[in-house]
Amino acid sequence: MRSPISKDTRLCMSLAARPGNFGTRFHNFLYDELNLDYVYKAFTSTDLEGAVRGIRALDIRGCAVSMPFKEACIPMLDELDASAAVIGSVNTIVNTGGHLKAYNTDYIAVESLLKSHAVPTSARVALRGSGGMAKAVAYALKGAGFANGVIVARSEAAGQALAQGIGYEWQPDVHGLQADLLVNVTPIGMAGGAEAAELAFVPGHIAAAHTVFDVVALPAETPLIVEARRQGRRVITGAEVATLQALEQFVLYTGVRPTPEQVARAEAWARNA
Amino acid sequence: MRSPISKDTRLCMSLAARPGNFGTRFHNFLYDELNLDYVYKAFTSTDLEGAVRGIRALDIRGCAVSMPFKEACIPMLDELDASAAVIGSVNTIVNTGGHLKAYNTDYIAVESLLKSHAVPTSARVALRGSGGMAKAVAYALKGAGFANGVIVARSEAAGQALAQGIGYEWQPDVHGLQADLLVNVTPIGMAGGAEAAELAFVPGHIAAAHTVFDVVALPAETPLIVEARRQGRRVITGAEVATLQALEQFVLYTGVRPTPEQVARAEAWARNA
Repeated sequence: MRSPISKDTRLCMSLAARPGNFGTRFHNFLYDELNLDYVYKAFTSTDLEGAVRGIRALDIRGCAVSMPFKEACIPMLDELDASAAVIGSVNTIVNTGGHLKAYNTDYIAVESLLKSHAVPTSARVALRGSGGMAKAVAYALKGAGFANGVIVARSEAAGQALAQGIGYEWQPDVHGLQADLLVNVTPIGMAGGAEAAELAFVPGHIAAAHTVFDVVALPAETPLIVEARRQGRRVITGAEVATLQALEQFVLYTGVRPTPEQVARAEAWARNA
Repeated sequence: MRSPISKDTRLCMSLAARPGNFGTRFHNFLYDELNLDYVYKAFTSTDLEGAVRGIRALDIRGCAVSMPFKEACIPMLDELDASAAVIGSVNTIVNTGGHLKAYNTDYIAVESLLKSHAVPTSARVALRGSGGMAKAVAYALKGAGFANGVIVARSEAAGQALAQGIGYEWQPDVHGLQADLLVNVTPIGMAGGAEAAELAFVPGHIAAAHTVFDVVALPAETPLIVEARRQGRRVITGAEVATLQALEQFVLYTGVRPTPEQVARAEAWARNA
């Protein structure tokens, strides 16, 4: 158990319209585990500028940024890491003596998972979605070397814009899809959503693919992941993204990289909220 | 033991040029003890306005204010309690849904200690000092009904101003002093200071008084308190002020008043840093 909070304890935080508990539990677990003099707490705010001003004034070490602040915070920061600059979206602020540097650890996590799961970059990609997270995933795919693919998005404007940005095609629905790597970045399959029970891709497309990647994290076992596992396909889950992006934040804030075993226990603790 | 920090945990804090650990340890001990979902941490800042902006933006529940921010923060707040208004000095901010109300719990604590120690208000007071804390103590004396006294201060301007504000006399040194209640609000007797070993009042004046009140909190047993005890005088220590003002902050932030026994344990824990 780490020592009690003192004046020297560093605060890390998150900022979201509707904060969850995953980050707070994940980070505090690892601070305890690694005996680091940090404390983490989620915040919400309706005054982004005031919150960022407070981060500087109180020397808060790091801040996770969620909806709806990911783009709005950019003019308030001092430096953008490539991971945030390439997609124009920030999910992490690191404060070093008043210098605020922005990262996007969703981008970093997705790029890293594609490598660690050894997905061949020759794979033809079908990415469903065109929102902020879809952009992070699409650019991470491009960054990881996946040059050939299609964006599936109902909105032609958003879909075409994203497709053109990374040199992919665009199509409005999954009709006639042919792809090796299926990636869902829509709310389809998300617990509590209107399409919680639905598949983001049809079973035939899953059969024709070799890897299925669902960015939905709650539940980790979405209908898409369940079906892909049933068909023996390689899967990458949204839970992996959620954990890895939080881990990369942890490393940026503390300079310490926990062992995979410690990360697994932190993840289990954080999910068990 | 209280439950782990979550998104719903309220943050309280302090703001000082040179933060100590007393508040952080005192408040966190009582949160644990009373199973309250709060966490406390001391901060420093060179940007008071940014810090207050952050308190609002992040809905931080309360903030203790120390030197050099006690007067400078006033224009940034929404409401002054009488305890802060009467001396123009704030040591506590309570944030209720973005409305920042300022208090001075030093004033509240001193007024309360004079009552709980049953010091008769007919006592003639000699108060040594003319700084910010001296002002809080002087007005608390006046508020508690001590109408007759003298301010002892080398600076005629500061001493006269304070004396006139509460209807006391002023004299530049302790020469010829006659008083029943001696109050030290200078750094004389403070650990680490240039006058750590000195007495704020001479033994003859202590012999002629019935009560000796030293606002110096570190050490609690200053040379003045030691001498007063030796002479069998009633004493009020700075440690009592420090604990009681922190307790009043605790009550303002949480709405919960711990038992005297809990406060005693919190104080012992906080001092043992």
